[in-house]
Amino acid sequence: MRIAVDTSGGEYAPHEIVKGAIKAAREYEVEITLVGKKEILYVLAGRHMGQLGINIVDASQVIGDEESAVEAVRSKPDSSIVVGTNLVKEGEASAFVSAGNTGALFYSALATLGKIDGIDRPAIGALINIDGSGPVLLVDAGANADCRPNHLAQFARLGSTYLREIFALDSPRVGLLNNGVEEKRGNRLAQETHQLLKESKLNFIGNIEGQDISGGKADVIVTDGFTGNIVLKTIEGLSSHWLYSLTQGGQLFSKAYRLPLRALNRDLGVDSWTKRLDYREAGGACLLGINGNVIKAHGRSRANAVKNAIELAKKTAERGLSQKIKEESNE
Amino acid sequence: MRIAVDTSGGEYAPHEIVKGAIKAAREYEVEITLVGKKEILYVLAGRHMGQLGINIVDASQVIGDEESAVEAVRSKPDSSIVVGTNLVKEGEASAFVSAGNTGALFYSALATLGKIDGIDRPAIGALINIDGSGPVLLVDAGANADCRPNHLAQFARLGSTYLREIFALDSPRVGLLNNGVEEKRGNRLAQETHQLLKESKLNFIGNIEGQDISGGKADVIVTDGFTGNIVLKTIEGLSSHWLYSLTQGGQLFSKAYRLPLRALNRDLGVDSWTKRLDYREAGGACLLGINGNVIKAHGRSRANAVKNAIELAKKTAERGLSQKIKEESNE
Repeated sequence: MRIAVDTSGGEYAPHEIVKGAIKAAREYEVEITLVGKKEILYVLAGRHMGQLGINIVDASQVIGDEESAVEAVRSKPDSSIVVGTNLVKEGEASAFVSAGNTGALFYSALATLGKIDGIDRPAIGALINIDGSGPVLLVDAGANADCRPNHLAQFARLGSTYLREIFALDSPRVGLLNNGVEEKRGNRLAQETHQLLKESKLNFIGNIEGQDISGGKADVIVTDGFTGNIVLKTIEGLSSHWLYSLTQGGQLFSKAYRLPLRALNRDLGVDSWTKRLDYREAGGACLLGINGNVIKAHGRSRANAVKNAIELAKKTAERGLSQKIKEESNE
Repeated sequence: MRIAVDTSGGEYAPHEIVKGAIKAAREYEVEITLVGKKEILYVLAGRHMGQLGINIVDASQVIGDEESAVEAVRSKPDSSIVVGTNLVKEGEASAFVSAGNTGALFYSALATLGKIDGIDRPAIGALINIDGSGPVLLVDAGANADCRPNHLAQFARLGSTYLREIFALDSPRVGLLNNGVEEKRGNRLAQETHQLLKESKLNFIGNIEGQDISGGKADVIVTDGFTGNIVLKTIEGLSSHWLYSLTQGGQLFSKAYRLPLRALNRDLGVDSWTKRLDYREAGGACLLGINGNVIKAHGRSRANAVKNAIELAKKTAERGLSQKIKEESNE
């Protein structure tokens, strides 16, 4: 199986991306196509090409994180994001992994690969895992700022199918993010969505509140892309802030008491939190409902996160996720 | 100045509420009216009545946290929340503090005291303070699930006036919570609100994202009550989770290395985080745009938080906040 990897997107591109891709090629049974500026890629990965089955596909343009998605995709046909999604479209790669501009990746995938039959609004699913008890999928994490109730009900189905197929969760618990647990709470969107989910075949556990996100109450957390994006970034911001303060405090303490910082970080759980919460290890997100396998790695992904995202991409392609989604949306 | 305090609302009612009220009566120049079940209140506070100028007003009914706000307020005219807001209405108290059901408190205040002239949608302002650099006011934190752009623009004005009058912030920076910093980002509500805020006389700094909440970028964070409530509870949930884990880890570590836990908690900043983040010390929230001074203390308030909320109530009444808001809304 060949997986295309965007080497121009993300904060640590291209070095960490290439490093992660090479790791993945070594550890998993995948062949890698590196998409990006070919002169650089030959320098970084040239010596691994034959041995590990690594290809290079040139993409001279780069879409920056601050660029407007639609304009950027339209005006940069030779950008790594557009070239990468085209490789999936043409069957040259089974999946595409990018840590670049989320909006552009989403729009490029949507424009090139289209929606799965029966899906109105593809969405972004973000894997968050705060208490370590298992994957929690927040969907939509930012693709659709304005939504209707049937869109949210579809996000719930997409998320359930994803967790079942990729994480082998039998009957994922679906929670509707809301400003209260009572059935009648919420804005109009949440109230109407609640009714749709209640009537659905999903394992709907009702409304959940903000504090329940870190409590592991639900496996799939459904919300509109506006709220989802804000909640996700709130969690990321707070986590970074805490980890930073804790690291500073730990250094002071370990100096004052002449203790090994390593033991402190281990016993206090700093290490495992860092792993769980930090983007660098978090793996990837997924574009759900797109007719092709496109994986979004976090913009701050380093080599290990890129490797994890590639593993996720491999799994997604192997399980035929798109086909499963299509079948279920026609039920 | 006399302040009415709801002794039937909140997780630690009535004991911690009464304790906090007595502390406030001792420390600040306020007289207190305890509102609640009189038999209990005479037992708890009877001996302080003469000396500290504490009154007791009977309220035989209690509105629970899970009750529907409108129904509860209508069907329980002798509840502490309704009786307390009536005391403000009748001029028997300058302000009312409650740790009870937020929705019911808001609805009771709105129904009894009404809106300030010129205000369409009173809102809840929640004070969050993550990095310790100063107060950050999130508004609306839950009163209005469905909003229009002019409502959000009004929330921005209410929040600015509040921080200026109560916290002496000269020109509070107003940020619009959004799923991207670019002007055109957001759902329709956010996009249209952005334009209104741009044209306003407020110190509008533009869109801010979830991660900026903990970064202290803005003093007033404006959003609809649905998103605001979810974000606030997400922060609370995550903070509780971290503090709990950290305390557990700290105990293990201090045992293993025979170190005083107190020093560890101090050096790691656990103490100051606990204070800043935990509800117990967080003071209160405010109902903005209500024609009278009503302060919402967090449901998990203990004595110190109640005392802080009473101090806030005193300040709010002294500064004539409602009058200031009225003047400015007519400008």
